[in-house]
Amino acid sequence: MTDSVQRPSGRAADALREVRITRHYTKHAEGSVLVEFGDTKVICTASIVERVPEFLRERNQGWLTAEYGMLPRATHTRSDREAARGKQTGRTQEIQRLIGRALRAVFDLERLGPRTLHIDCDVIQADGGTRTASITGAFVAAHDAVARLVAAGRIAQSPITDYVAAISVGVYEGMPVLDLDYDEDSRCDTDMNVVMTGEGGFVEVQGTAEGTPFSRDEMNALLDLAQHGIRTLVQMQKAALESNDA
Amino acid sequence: MTDSVQRPSGRAADALREVRITRHYTKHAEGSVLVEFGDTKVICTASIVERVPEFLRERNQGWLTAEYGMLPRATHTRSDREAARGKQTGRTQEIQRLIGRALRAVFDLERLGPRTLHIDCDVIQADGGTRTASITGAFVAAHDAVARLVAAGRIAQSPITDYVAAISVGVYEGMPVLDLDYDEDSRCDTDMNVVMTGEGGFVEVQGTAEGTPFSRDEMNALLDLAQHGIRTLVQMQKAALESNDA
Amino acid sequence: MTDSVQRPSGRAADALREVRITRHYTKHAEGSVLVEFGDTKVICTASIVERVPEFLRERNQGWLTAEYGMLPRATHTRSDREAARGKQTGRTQEIQRLIGRALRAVFDLERLGPRTLHIDCDVIQADGGTRTASITGAFVAAHDAVARLVAAGRIAQSPITDYVAAISVGVYEGMPVLDLDYDEDSRCDTDMNVVMTGEGGFVEVQGTAEGTPFSRDEMNALLDLAQHGIRTLVQMQKAALESNDA
Amino acid sequence: MTDSVQRPSGRAADALREVRITRHYTKHAEGSVLVEFGDTKVICTASIVERVPEFLRERNQGWLTAEYGMLPRATHTRSDREAARGKQTGRTQEIQRLIGRALRAVFDLERLGPRTLHIDCDVIQADGGTRTASITGAFVAAHDAVARLVAAGRIAQSPITDYVAAISVGVYEGMPVLDLDYDEDSRCDTDMNVVMTGEGGFVEVQGTAEGTPFSRDEMNALLDLAQHGIRTLVQMQKAALESNDA
Amino acid sequence: MTDSVQRPSGRAADALREVRITRHYTKHAEGSVLVEFGDTKVICTASIVERVPEFLRERNQGWLTAEYGMLPRATHTRSDREAARGKQTGRTQEIQRLIGRALRAVFDLERLGPRTLHIDCDVIQADGGTRTASITGAFVAAHDAVARLVAAGRIAQSPITDYVAAISVGVYEGMPVLDLDYDEDSRCDTDMNVVMTGEGGFVEVQGTAEGTPFSRDEMNALLDLAQHGIRTLVQMQKAALESNDA
Amino acid sequence: MTDSVQRPSGRAADALREVRITRHYTKHAEGSVLVEFGDTKVICTASIVERVPEFLRERNQGWLTAEYGMLPRATHTRSDREAARGKQTGRTQEIQRLIGRALRAVFDLERLGPRTLHIDCDVIQADGGTRTASITGAFVAAHDAVARLVAAGRIAQSPITDYVAAISVGVYEGMPVLDLDYDEDSRCDTDMNVVMTGEGGFVEVQGTAEGTPFSRDEMNALLDLAQHGIRTLVQMQKAALESNDA
Repeated sequence: MTDSVQRPSGRAADALREVRITRHYTKHAEGSVLVEFGDTKVICTASIVERVPEFLRERNQGWLTAEYGMLPRATHTRSDREAARGKQTGRTQEIQRLIGRALRAVFDLERLGPRTLHIDCDVIQADGGTRTASITGAFVAAHDAVARLVAAGRIAQSPITDYVAAISVGVYEGMPVLDLDYDEDSRCDTDMNVVMTGEGGFVEVQGTAEGTPFSRDEMNALLDLAQHGIRTLVQMQKAALESNDA
Repeated sequence: MTDSVQRPSGRAADALREVRITRHYTKHAEGSVLVEFGDTKVICTASIVERVPEFLRERNQGWLTAEYGMLPRATHTRSDREAARGKQTGRTQEIQRLIGRALRAVFDLERLGPRTLHIDCDVIQADGGTRTASITGAFVAAHDAVARLVAAGRIAQSPITDYVAAISVGVYEGMPVLDLDYDEDSRCDTDMNVVMTGEGGFVEVQGTAEGTPFSRDEMNALLDLAQHGIRTLVQMQKAALESNDA
Repeated sequence: MTDSVQRPSGRAADALREVRITRHYTKHAEGSVLVEFGDTKVICTASIVERVPEFLRERNQGWLTAEYGMLPRATHTRSDREAARGKQTGRTQEIQRLIGRALRAVFDLERLGPRTLHIDCDVIQADGGTRTASITGAFVAAHDAVARLVAAGRIAQSPITDYVAAISVGVYEGMPVLDLDYDEDSRCDTDMNVVMTGEGGFVEVQGTAEGTPFSRDEMNALLDLAQHGIRTLVQMQKAALESNDA
Repeated sequence: MTDSVQRPSGRAADALREVRITRHYTKHAEGSVLVEFGDTKVICTASIVERVPEFLRERNQGWLTAEYGMLPRATHTRSDREAARGKQTGRTQEIQRLIGRALRAVFDLERLGPRTLHIDCDVIQADGGTRTASITGAFVAAHDAVARLVAAGRIAQSPITDYVAAISVGVYEGMPVLDLDYDEDSRCDTDMNVVMTGEGGFVEVQGTAEGTPFSRDEMNALLDLAQHGIRTLVQMQKAALESNDA
Repeated sequence: MTDSVQRPSGRAADALREVRITRHYTKHAEGSVLVEFGDTKVICTASIVERVPEFLRERNQGWLTAEYGMLPRATHTRSDREAARGKQTGRTQEIQRLIGRALRAVFDLERLGPRTLHIDCDVIQADGGTRTASITGAFVAAHDAVARLVAAGRIAQSPITDYVAAISVGVYEGMPVLDLDYDEDSRCDTDMNVVMTGEGGFVEVQGTAEGTPFSRDEMNALLDLAQHGIRTLVQMQKAALESNDA
Repeated sequence: MTDSVQRPSGRAADALREVRITRHYTKHAEGSVLVEFGDTKVICTASIVERVPEFLRERNQGWLTAEYGMLPRATHTRSDREAARGKQTGRTQEIQRLIGRALRAVFDLERLGPRTLHIDCDVIQADGGTRTASITGAFVAAHDAVARLVAAGRIAQSPITDYVAAISVGVYEGMPVLDLDYDEDSRCDTDMNVVMTGEGGFVEVQGTAEGTPFSRDEMNALLDLAQHGIRTLVQMQKAALESNDA
């Protein structure tokens, strides 16, 4: 492991890409955010639906669920449209389950009341890290949707208990690096996605050795980088939410 | 039929919404356009795939096909995600078939050579007229993709034989009006989508009486409006294509 | 455009094929018609189901919906059976949506009461114009089904407000012609399906340029032919409905 | 078991319904038959497709396969359209597999050569016994299709080695009866479908106790009836095939 | 037909394979049996679900239904996993419908009360006769599940009215033989599955000529063998059910 | 975090359940293992198919892929059969993707040659940890299948480069514990699945906070436990593979 390795992106090992969070991006959704991690661009919307799924009918709580998609030409070469193929890939399902779990980790679903917060993350341009951008943007969209419920007096207290954000880390030519773009991701031996709360607790850690298995030391270095990156992302979420709403 | 009727949008009977055509909107596709008809926003991409479908294997020509989708929260209330439901609705299929026919009407597929131009129209915000915006934007995306093939010397001559654009017209409280937004569309008795070439020929006319059947006179007035609107749209396509590419 | 062109069918430009409407064709359905436009043969049934779809649960009205199918060997070469493939083609969905809209245009659904009239159009032999034959025959089947409801005192007043019929027109070698058979349809530049009421109002106009775009003059000539044809079809519907029921 | 029981149909215990076999019923298929067993009406077509399925690619033989369907309103109450539901029921699959096996029992597939004979049986009116009518009619359609191949010199010798027909038998109030109509079928304790060749060999015997299990004696009586019925059906097939073709 | 023919398995013509019935095989199900007919091994479970299907909502009775599956590598070469393909084959559906009918023949569904007994038969190793082993084992699992309901006082009287078991018979080189293994099954001209009650009544007889049609004499010999085999199987079921439960 | 907490299973915090690995469990597969982690029982088979998927056609290498399923009544209450529902759940797809990645981490696919090793893991009884038992058992099945290829001289050198096994760890009432059974899993705040090689490298780490987010210290304690558990499992795999084959 060495600092003399040069990342394909030219960034420092612990540097995030330029991150932009644009609220109120589309007009119909209760929360709508365009989140950009460099060239990765995801529209995250949060929709309030006054209904809960069947399995919660009896219980006195709400639900939060997430779906994820990519426009067919968000990627270098065109992918099949999942709606036309008639099913979502395993990758899509894995990602949308992850987004849902990540957001629910900071939601008190009893406070939400008998309604569903439906998160949709749609990638319009992909350049690596679409799932971590989705989680980071979806939190802001969910926050906006919840703020409307509170402002309208439909719930007494916000069900949101903390911030949540996510980042990828990986080992590129022996060097742990933060926030992989597509080019780096496809050349990394290890790829890890980390989801953390604003308080610094871990919600998800998903590390995969694409090539050589990784060591405990590498894992520690990756987690250090992720903690650093997520602290920055949470500050950006706060800044975005504090900015003036027109 | 009277001129004293006020459209919900406040526009004159023959006024288009503000139309914007943004080229090179996403970075991977050979052609990528954001088209906006007022609050209706559609990402149109054109992808070149060096392959033709099975039914054209023997023939010496290319193919152009189109797919259409809406983000679940492009609309007032959240729609089911077609990829999650496992099938496209009849409406979606009808629209994507229409887009494909419209574009093929101005394509010489033999000149395209043994490749497929794949059009994707994805609505990120819907406010009426998504299919006509899609056709109008997709033409520009297709033009950009084809220009690359010509510039790279991969085809000798552009397969594009004319411009093509589309607009909706309808009868609102007895008054024929141009370019319906969602609010107008849902209150119109008659709704007609018209696709025309730059030369002024009709490619498609699809008129439906939602309430009272329409008369031959109304039909004539609607076609007049559509011809007027499409002439303007074709000028906008020309202006967009002539603008400087950075 | 010239009168000296000879149609493949040998018919005059404004001549329908021989049309036959056979009521009570099968024994179980509330309305059952075999409609023949020359060699095109479609079984149209109307079934009364004492239930309305979910989206109408709250409203005090009935519903009319249509489904369309073709026997696999109704055509020159065998088509895949849609039930075996596991989905209906885009063409099938387009046609059944058209049939439904056409019939609903002459139905007062509040008068129908809380029940669904289910139209099934199944092509047993295809020779062009299956969708227009379907609409024309389905109206008669629906009329018979409704008459039963009235006769049984289950509804006070017929929900049918007018006749409705449909015909195709096209431009064959520059000459507008009425009621295309398969051979003509596959050689026409323009193909238009028109649905009109007995009163002469337009319900649907769907015109498509298969080759050269069509002009406003051609469109006018086509609509003239369609109006003429539909007047004749409505007379045939009346005659069929007035004939003696055994 | 007693002869004094009166069948709902009024027929004698060993009486078939009126059987009609109409050849050349639709015009496109190589073989097309309308078969009627009383009020049960099935269109059987045989289509020659110059291709064999993947699993026979290497082998020097042809294939025969069958599909079965019912128009939604062939029955007393409307059934869901399988193409709209997106899958065939278990019953449909069971029947079409049975039809295929029955026909293949009298086909020498090597003589057929590298092509597929595709049988389609579509029930336009159901009154019991649709699978046995289908097999009986499909044989005649297959015979006509094969005769064309022989007449055209495309195969040297007919692949058909014998006749094949089918009939249902059942125990109605203790009395074994032949050729159940719907009303009888729904009131029988035992229902058996028998497929036999012209030579009198058994191809399929499928007996099911709907209520009380059946005894060996009942089984013997049922098989006697079936043998008698199938002999008559084979004579009708022969008569139909010997009749003059216009 | 001759006794001098040697079966591939070396068994006498009327000999069953070694049959083992292991109760309480898995721990969660109300009834769980591993049934082995030689190398054919099937896990049969019976689950009590306190709900009836929609079509029985109004009626005062329970339901029994069955599903069947094979592990992909239960067979000589790996089969596609049905869950991954997205549908069950026609063969699977045929078998599970057969199992359900066989069990229902000895169930008084009114006595079962408003609940469903769900039978699952999953083949972990296949060597011929999986459907007959499934029925034979499923009866024992169902019996155990029902005994629990009775023991818990949830039903007053067992809904089971008789034993039921099944066996295959076939004609191997002219000799009728009992209980075909895979090797024999694939070389038999005729294959018949017979389901009978403990009282000796026939519930199902399904005979198919794979090659030469079979004669009435062969059929009689096959039924004799089946009756003999099923008597033995019912004794084994009784013995298994009387054995001590730990 | 305290040692005085009593696990529901009564096991010590670092104790595995009883693990059993039974080779040659079913007879058709090239490798077949029954793996048991306490009451969790999974049949793992490895099948050699002499074919590679489309996307590897051009490349000179083999492939290893995995599928996972559960018998419907492997669980406390009956789950829907995925084959009957027509699709695999997101959970199933996630698990089978994980198993495939885990095994591929110790496979040199070029050495495998142009063939696919197809892993099937089918849970016949579930009590927590089915995915980790699957990976651990599947390795042994894959090893047996590969050994056959080597023994038959079909590949020169084993493509297996190391051992691989997996275990779950979790935080139960503040105490990190090894190898969760169902009862513990459903009461743990954090659940982590770890896949490691025989050499001690990490292949996958998937940790999820079900309730309270977990700390870096907890993560470290969990990884320590997992390393310990996997060392034991690898010894068991070695012992099983060295045992005498009858």
